[in-house]
Amino acid sequence: MQILDGRKTSNDLKEEIALEVLSIKKAGNKTPHLAAIIVGNDGASQTYVASKVKACKRVGFQSTLVELPENITEKKLLQEIDILNNNNAIDGFIVQLPLPKHINEQKVLMLVNPDKDVDGFHPTNVGRMVLDLPCFLPATPFGILELLERYNIKTSGKNVVVLGRSHIVGRPMSILMSQKRNAGNATVTVCHSRTKNLKEFTLSADIIIAAIGIPEFLKANMVKEGVVVIDVGITRVDDATKKKGYRLAGDVDYVHVSKKAAFITPVPGGVGPMTIAMLLKNTLLAFQRKN
Amino acid sequence: MQILDGRKTSNDLKEEIALEVLSIKKAGNKTPHLAAIIVGNDGASQTYVASKVKACKRVGFQSTLVELPENITEKKLLQEIDILNNNNAIDGFIVQLPLPKHINEQKVLMLVNPDKDVDGFHPTNVGRMVLDLPCFLPATPFGILELLERYNIKTSGKNVVVLGRSHIVGRPMSILMSQKRNAGNATVTVCHSRTKNLKEFTLSADIIIAAIGIPEFLKANMVKEGVVVIDVGITRVDDATKKKGYRLAGDVDYVHVSKKAAFITPVPGGVGPMTIAMLLKNTLLAFQRKN
Repeated sequence: MQILDGRKTSNDLKEEIALEVLSIKKAGNKTPHLAAIIVGNDGASQTYVASKVKACKRVGFQSTLVELPENITEKKLLQEIDILNNNNAIDGFIVQLPLPKHINEQKVLMLVNPDKDVDGFHPTNVGRMVLDLPCFLPATPFGILELLERYNIKTSGKNVVVLGRSHIVGRPMSILMSQKRNAGNATVTVCHSRTKNLKEFTLSADIIIAAIGIPEFLKANMVKEGVVVIDVGITRVDDATKKKGYRLAGDVDYVHVSKKAAFITPVPGGVGPMTIAMLLKNTLLAFQRKN
Repeated sequence: MQILDGRKTSNDLKEEIALEVLSIKKAGNKTPHLAAIIVGNDGASQTYVASKVKACKRVGFQSTLVELPENITEKKLLQEIDILNNNNAIDGFIVQLPLPKHINEQKVLMLVNPDKDVDGFHPTNVGRMVLDLPCFLPATPFGILELLERYNIKTSGKNVVVLGRSHIVGRPMSILMSQKRNAGNATVTVCHSRTKNLKEFTLSADIIIAAIGIPEFLKANMVKEGVVVIDVGITRVDDATKKKGYRLAGDVDYVHVSKKAAFITPVPGGVGPMTIAMLLKNTLLAFQRKN
């Protein structure tokens, strides 16, 4: 069994991006610039955004954090988006989710200029992904493709089972891995809450991508020997033995599944760290496409 | 075995649309208006477009045919698209494909206003489909969903195998049937040229959608008893016994597969007629969304 080390791979990627930034600077150009909008004081959101800002610093990007009050009107937020859309100094930006309930999230995301939509959430980017046109891939699926490639995991003709059909992981992942690409050309099945005989699907899978948000859902008796397992889940599970009172659990029963797997991502330290790295990569792409 | 009669279902749909048009007229409104651009003199394209115009007449739509010469410049064609985009009297329009080789098809399709893109080919419509937002579904997959619904074929929790990953049939079909919707909630596997052990997939399928363009590819020994078969293929096959010297063949070995199938679409007379009906349906939707 080999661990797919997302932390190490993410660090490799960041170093590569930092080198690119150095050569951009040397050529006398301004550096890539990522902005993030955060609304309100949600603790988890603040942590995520802070780590994105920190990652920007590390690779030499400029970053701008736009902090807006919880009670901002939708209209005012849309104006803020428009400002970023029209600010030529900013290459890409993200709107940290979730937004307060009085704001229509979809309406906000729709207004982001697709050329600056480095989260890849805008319908135009999603459509361009499906049609295999230049686009921004959503960061988590993009990170999984990168991880598979860097560990030289063959996917062509393999049976891939994706657990979950969410807009940001399951769906794009299933599309990408079935396209003609590196880490693609697989025969992909999407399983979800309505799937019957799930075990039959997972037992025949060469690669399983678990993205359903149910802690330790995938058990050892559901997978075959030599399977490759990518665990996208990350849920807080009460655990009195921990100082914080909880531990982070993936969608995979890691202790037992890892004994049968050829490759497996840990949680934490697997898919998670890749996500921020791919956001940086998308920002670099946005910069390069503009310049 | 029951035939999924696309011709009859398509006629039912057209009658329903014609009734809607009548009530639109009665309310004193102008009627829905579909335009089609055709470039050059390709025989097959001319036949297709002519049947679309005829279908418009039948349901009481206005239609406009824009015929452009084979040697038109890309720039001039883009201008024609812009004219239709800005013509408020036109609710939806299509660009008949293929276009002459000197023209960038993708560039042309990208310029079509997504709100008038009744073929559902624009990336924004594709993305909106994936994200389950209001959109125009591409006509062939839309027609298959309609056929399954009208014959009350249960899809929730069923194993669906889609043969082919094309942008206009296989890919959207696989996404739609796995979403939460009527004729959805299925466990969908996309198979293609790189798939290994294809027969294992097709043998376990409750529903097979064949869209690969290889005549009579799907044989009886590849399907289980009681399977539902949707045949999207339509290829001319030499046949000296026919007056025209050819016959039309689907992707399914109909004679033998139909003996095992619970439901099956014939070729011709299955999926084909549904496609034009759904183009009309999309035009009606475009009209309704605007008004």
